[in-house]
Amino acid sequence: MSTIYLTRKGHFAAAHRLHNPELSDEENLRIYGPCNNPNWHGHNYNLEVTIAGEPDPRTGMLCNLKDLDRVIRQTIIDQVDHKNLNLEVAFLDGVTTTVENLVLRFWQVLADQIPAGRLHEIRLYETERNVAIYRGE
Amino acid sequence: MSTIYLTRKGHFAAAHRLHNPELSDEENLRIYGPCNNPNWHGHNYNLEVTIAGEPDPRTGMLCNLKDLDRVIRQTIIDQVDHKNLNLEVAFLDGVTTTVENLVLRFWQVLADQIPAGRLHEIRLYETERNVAIYRGE
Amino acid sequence: MSTIYLTRKGHFAAAHRLHNPELSDEENLRIYGPCNNPNWHGHNYNLEVTIAGEPDPRTGMLCNLKDLDRVIRQTIIDQVDHKNLNLEVAFLDGVTTTVENLVLRFWQVLADQIPAGRLHEIRLYETERNVAIYRGE
Amino acid sequence: MSTIYLTRKGHFAAAHRLHNPELSDEENLRIYGPCNNPNWHGHNYNLEVTIAGEPDPRTGMLCNLKDLDRVIRQTIIDQVDHKNLNLEVAFLDGVTTTVENLVLRFWQVLADQIPAGRLHEIRLYETERNVAIYRGE
Amino acid sequence: MSTIYLTRKGHFAAAHRLHNPELSDEENLRIYGPCNNPNWHGHNYNLEVTIAGEPDPRTGMLCNLKDLDRVIRQTIIDQVDHKNLNLEVAFLDGVTTTVENLVLRFWQVLADQIPAGRLHEIRLYETERNVAIYRGE
Amino acid sequence: MSTIYLTRKGHFAAAHRLHNPELSDEENLRIYGPCNNPNWHGHNYNLEVTIAGEPDPRTGMLCNLKDLDRVIRQTIIDQVDHKNLNLEVAFLDGVTTTVENLVLRFWQVLADQIPAGRLHEIRLYETERNVAIYRGE
Repeated sequence: MSTIYLTRKGHFAAAHRLHNPELSDEENLRIYGPCNNPNWHGHNYNLEVTIAGEPDPRTGMLCNLKDLDRVIRQTIIDQVDHKNLNLEVAFLDGVTTTVENLVLRFWQVLADQIPAGRLHEIRLYETERNVAIYRGE
Repeated sequence: MSTIYLTRKGHFAAAHRLHNPELSDEENLRIYGPCNNPNWHGHNYNLEVTIAGEPDPRTGMLCNLKDLDRVIRQTIIDQVDHKNLNLEVAFLDGVTTTVENLVLRFWQVLADQIPAGRLHEIRLYETERNVAIYRGE
Repeated sequence: MSTIYLTRKGHFAAAHRLHNPELSDEENLRIYGPCNNPNWHGHNYNLEVTIAGEPDPRTGMLCNLKDLDRVIRQTIIDQVDHKNLNLEVAFLDGVTTTVENLVLRFWQVLADQIPAGRLHEIRLYETERNVAIYRGE
Repeated sequence: MSTIYLTRKGHFAAAHRLHNPELSDEENLRIYGPCNNPNWHGHNYNLEVTIAGEPDPRTGMLCNLKDLDRVIRQTIIDQVDHKNLNLEVAFLDGVTTTVENLVLRFWQVLADQIPAGRLHEIRLYETERNVAIYRGE
Repeated sequence: MSTIYLTRKGHFAAAHRLHNPELSDEENLRIYGPCNNPNWHGHNYNLEVTIAGEPDPRTGMLCNLKDLDRVIRQTIIDQVDHKNLNLEVAFLDGVTTTVENLVLRFWQVLADQIPAGRLHEIRLYETERNVAIYRGE
Repeated sequence: MSTIYLTRKGHFAAAHRLHNPELSDEENLRIYGPCNNPNWHGHNYNLEVTIAGEPDPRTGMLCNLKDLDRVIRQTIIDQVDHKNLNLEVAFLDGVTTTVENLVLRFWQVLADQIPAGRLHEIRLYETERNVAIYRGE
């Protein structure tokens, strides 16, 4: 019995703004600084999805990477790529689009769509220096 | 007499949209596709500024990299970082914000601000796979 | 009049072997070493295609990157990805598959397919440390 | 008592093919797609070996990185670099060379050769976007 | 209840030498090899600090990345950047400056300075191929 | 007749200090700032050597990369790796070790050692953000 972790990387480009409508404009600006800009800014996000499980002895694969890639694409990338994360993504409705919240919501929409094995970790790079990780715990 | 090329890298995150108001909405969508999204999208841009000239024999430097960095920051990065390139950048007013046009405009604002040597090349990465280069010719 | 250079990156995975049938086996082994292995080896090649020209003032684009990407894909990537470069690629027939020869042949098949502007440079990374560049001269 | 993890990276270039001889040709093609190409394809693999343990208080080292590198080289890199993974590697005999199976077999040959500490994790990048990880569990 | 991991990257350039004054010069040279050079050598170190905890529901942030960055900078980067790790860093006094010991000491000075959440992991790249990781266990 | 450019990458770790003994200590500190630290600092330098010429029609190679690598190693890497650039490198004697001066001196020692073709360009990365390039002009 051997647990393999398998990671598939993807990326998307999107606009967003950090803003919580329940806070005053002053507080939003104080907390989020330039990320609160009402005219938006954006990022090239890099996404790493890791699943865990045992390889199928017949195929030697934990999951066909083409299937995993298709699910990541349909469930996440196609919803967020070249989009405004605050305005246009159904599963982010009402969510302040911090990198922490994004990775949490990505987990929720992806976890039960994994074609084989189980979702183990999602890692989201907002920039080369800022990364959020969630493991479903 | 020896010509050295010296490159300093920087980066910024911005929102934009490809849209030419002189074209119809249909034509904008046909030409620019998802990049025409009226709700914006965005990128982590990487910028490489290369200057050329002879090192000062006293200092061994073509240009103090701190000075070059400060000029790039003041002239470009501070104007575009966490901004909407279509709405908030004076030197991009009226410009369709393709990576080609951005690099041309960056040259125009930066060329006569170089602290030593001459501006040789600007290279702008819109994504890891799309790069525009301008050499002032 | 402004010349912009625009680079699009792609990649492919392929098997190959360095072997010139006009040389003896001993000479092939002496020249090419482990790259002469008759059982093949392979690489993840990274490809950078740079075109040059003036942006269209109407679109602000030298070339629509989607069109450039499609041409690179159809003309090169689809021919070589997950293939044996020595056995399966029509435009490499009879060519010793050094990184130098690959970049020369890529130029020959790609040069007159560029959708806008002109082909300026092809850069091919065989590994992270070995790169060949051709500019059509 | 402090557990340090120490990672050493290596890389190799190899040819392979995904093919299980116990399956029909049709099934192999359906499962593995272009990776089933009978003429092979190949990759630049990146390998990350992580060991765990306490630093020796005399040297401040968990393991001399030169020793770790030598073991990785002798045990793995020298066996697979510029080789055909399906045909030429004794410890891969009879193994379908998926990235999952490779990382499992690498663990088995490497685990009892670690010069100090214990093997904690092997991470194998088949491409920049596909990674398998094994932790011996 | 959801535990998010948040990583902030930094870097610094420093000189050092591996040398334990309690060992003889011969033994130091035998153990550390070229890293024992009495005239020093140096590295561009890359540092990754990961904290863990639950996002604040009001801000959607585990920790304001600006605050985390400031603490990493004040506590570590400003002490070691453009410095000699053996001679000039108070918190490294008497420490053999292996990458293992550095990451342990970085943990000790940083752990109780984290502005929100708890310190989970420090990862230090001495070169692209050598990495030490500590998780406080 | 086709000119190919062939690049081989290498790297080394070294200590240095920016200091011109013909200037006062105050002037050295004012010009070079933290890089003037008398206790040294250091870098992981990345080196890219590009040669130019026509491939040999018999081998398909401009230059055997093993030969090019050996020359780069013997002429440069072995002289500077894990060394103090100010104190221990014969060909840098009396040179202020700016990245500009290093790349100039590397050219001078390497240019007539190239095994085939001619030296076209040397590119030296002092950090990921600072690069000097020399083309022998």
